[in-house]
Amino acid sequence: MPKQKNKVAKEKETPKQIAAKIYDMAKGIVADIKKETDPEFVTQQRGKSNVEFDEKKGILKLGDKETTRTFLNVGHAKKFMQTMLVSAKAHEYLKHNKTASIREIYYELKHTVPNTKENTFEGQTESDSCIVDLEHSINSIREKLNLHANPKGTLYGDITLKDKMHHNDTFNCGKLGRGGWSIMSRLEPEEIDIMKINAKYVLVIETEAMYERLVEERFPKDNNCILVSTGGQAARGTRRLIHRLHTEKKLPVYVFTDGDPYGWYIYSVIKQGSMALAAHSGFMACPNAKYIGMTLDDIEIYDLQNVTEKMKDGDLKRAKEMMAYPWFQNEAWQHQLKKALKEKVRIEQQALANKSLEFVATEYLPTKIKKKDFLP
Amino acid sequence: MPKQKNKVAKEKETPKQIAAKIYDMAKGIVADIKKETDPEFVTQQRGKSNVEFDEKKGILKLGDKETTRTFLNVGHAKKFMQTMLVSAKAHEYLKHNKTASIREIYYELKHTVPNTKENTFEGQTESDSCIVDLEHSINSIREKLNLHANPKGTLYGDITLKDKMHHNDTFNCGKLGRGGWSIMSRLEPEEIDIMKINAKYVLVIETEAMYERLVEERFPKDNNCILVSTGGQAARGTRRLIHRLHTEKKLPVYVFTDGDPYGWYIYSVIKQGSMALAAHSGFMACPNAKYIGMTLDDIEIYDLQNVTEKMKDGDLKRAKEMMAYPWFQNEAWQHQLKKALKEKVRIEQQALANKSLEFVATEYLPTKIKKKDFLP
Repeated sequence: MPKQKNKVAKEKETPKQIAAKIYDMAKGIVADIKKETDPEFVTQQRGKSNVEFDEKKGILKLGDKETTRTFLNVGHAKKFMQTMLVSAKAHEYLKHNKTASIREIYYELKHTVPNTKENTFEGQTESDSCIVDLEHSINSIREKLNLHANPKGTLYGDITLKDKMHHNDTFNCGKLGRGGWSIMSRLEPEEIDIMKINAKYVLVIETEAMYERLVEERFPKDNNCILVSTGGQAARGTRRLIHRLHTEKKLPVYVFTDGDPYGWYIYSVIKQGSMALAAHSGFMACPNAKYIGMTLDDIEIYDLQNVTEKMKDGDLKRAKEMMAYPWFQNEAWQHQLKKALKEKVRIEQQALANKSLEFVATEYLPTKIKKKDFLP
Repeated sequence: MPKQKNKVAKEKETPKQIAAKIYDMAKGIVADIKKETDPEFVTQQRGKSNVEFDEKKGILKLGDKETTRTFLNVGHAKKFMQTMLVSAKAHEYLKHNKTASIREIYYELKHTVPNTKENTFEGQTESDSCIVDLEHSINSIREKLNLHANPKGTLYGDITLKDKMHHNDTFNCGKLGRGGWSIMSRLEPEEIDIMKINAKYVLVIETEAMYERLVEERFPKDNNCILVSTGGQAARGTRRLIHRLHTEKKLPVYVFTDGDPYGWYIYSVIKQGSMALAAHSGFMACPNAKYIGMTLDDIEIYDLQNVTEKMKDGDLKRAKEMMAYPWFQNEAWQHQLKKALKEKVRIEQQALANKSLEFVATEYLPTKIKKKDFLP
């Protein structure tokens, strides 16, 4: 049964519609078997060679290359069986309104095939890759298959959410003390409503400690903004949340990370999407996001030479790779990346404490925002 | 000036009292200088050789060994200067009601000493060790010096908190949807009040995915308990919270981790404290905590042989070390540790999904709790 092509990935597909897509796929396969035709499973080809940068939309996407798996090919048969197991289980979750982590579905499906010594799965990588196949085949994301990875990230500010799957709890994330709301692993619109929001922009922050600093300085209140801390690379639930604030609520998104290739890559994943999830940029990316800092120029501007760190080999390697990516082909980023490779120093967000604890909240961020001193 | 001995570490010391302790210490040093005596800084000796297990209290503690640093000793002079810088800065935070991460205080204090090429600190390890010295010298914890590490962990359930430093926000952690409250890095009683709590016990969970499972299954509501997810080894703020629930609110604490030495060690740190922070067990430990699972016996009892994993070398090494610790000298834990070394398999919490997603909530945990089937 062929992949469902030419359908735009739909943000608002309901669990019922997704379940129907899986059911249709399976029905096609059963029909093939009844016709004594070799059943096929078609999915999009992933990997660098099929990733394209959509200049107009400003996001990464997948090209047209496909992968077909046939059941009667000995090399494909096990993977075919695994994909059917994952598809049936995801269908069951959707039917029964259950969700599961990708580790749970692995454990739930792992067993020894009766009368053999063959296990359905040997490791989680095997079920993970079936999940990715299924996502691409039905042109949606795992969250809409009721699957999720681990949660990570915190939300703070004058934003009221409603969890329709949990007693319709309605709460304002600016009124939870300094701790904030622990962002869920899945944040689909049919479950979590963004009821009300009073903010001029969203500030996305790499480190939790900087999040705590800005809360202590009352930055969100004084500047009328929402804070999202990612705790490193943003988890999928956190990316979905930022995406929704950006697209549903039309809020500008400013990203604030350490001044190093790792931090800049966190930004680019939030903005354009990632290569590994290129097909899902429509669910995840924020093409109009801006980068607020840290830049390597900040070191001189704010006289921070004394609190830089040496860049590690991994950072230098990443900087070289990033220089070649189409979505970094602009003067500002090429300048940063060249500077990184030349000077081999990095600067952390928290190094701004060298001026004073308040400096980031009273000077650094407000000045950049006022002057629109962003990187694209 | 000698360390302030014979004083019990006090949970309820106020910022003012802590600031006074630092001030007194500094006054003593100034007096020494005026008398032309070599000033001394006395702190407790840390490390395994000075850690003792207090059988009666069931917690780790430090012995009586002390370390004295003198300013006129060339080998001590720089460290002495660093300790004074950290002490003065912490005093300033307390005076001005500011808090800072241990990375921020490092950056704030790092500079080149005028007319020299000498930096105050070369790396964060240097300032961190001064913080530890100061904690031990004044017989308190960094949180009471207004310092903190990164936050991590989530709280869920019918518990109402008030943040007195944030508009007296008062909120119930069972009414924040499925996301829960993001636990702060510092949770001192003079800032965060536990206003109301309706629960029979606290269930501490190693993985965030298991936390999400139990919330989805409505386990906390059906079983009238509080959930705390640690996301691996518990952060200090999360340990303080669990400790407060255990001591202030007299709630039983049950700990639920993966069935491996790493998970068991997470448990023992929550229960008895850690060797690195042996002096602080009075602020952190929960000596009556119980271990609910996973045990290696669960593998046979619940027929999970198919979903075990091979133990890594690091786990085996840790198991050997743990066998020798005084606080693991009981039949139940010796049995687990021996079994680990013999069978070399581990079992994850999420492997229970192999029975069904609900199994952990409807069978595994309720049965263990009903039968009081705990490890000590």
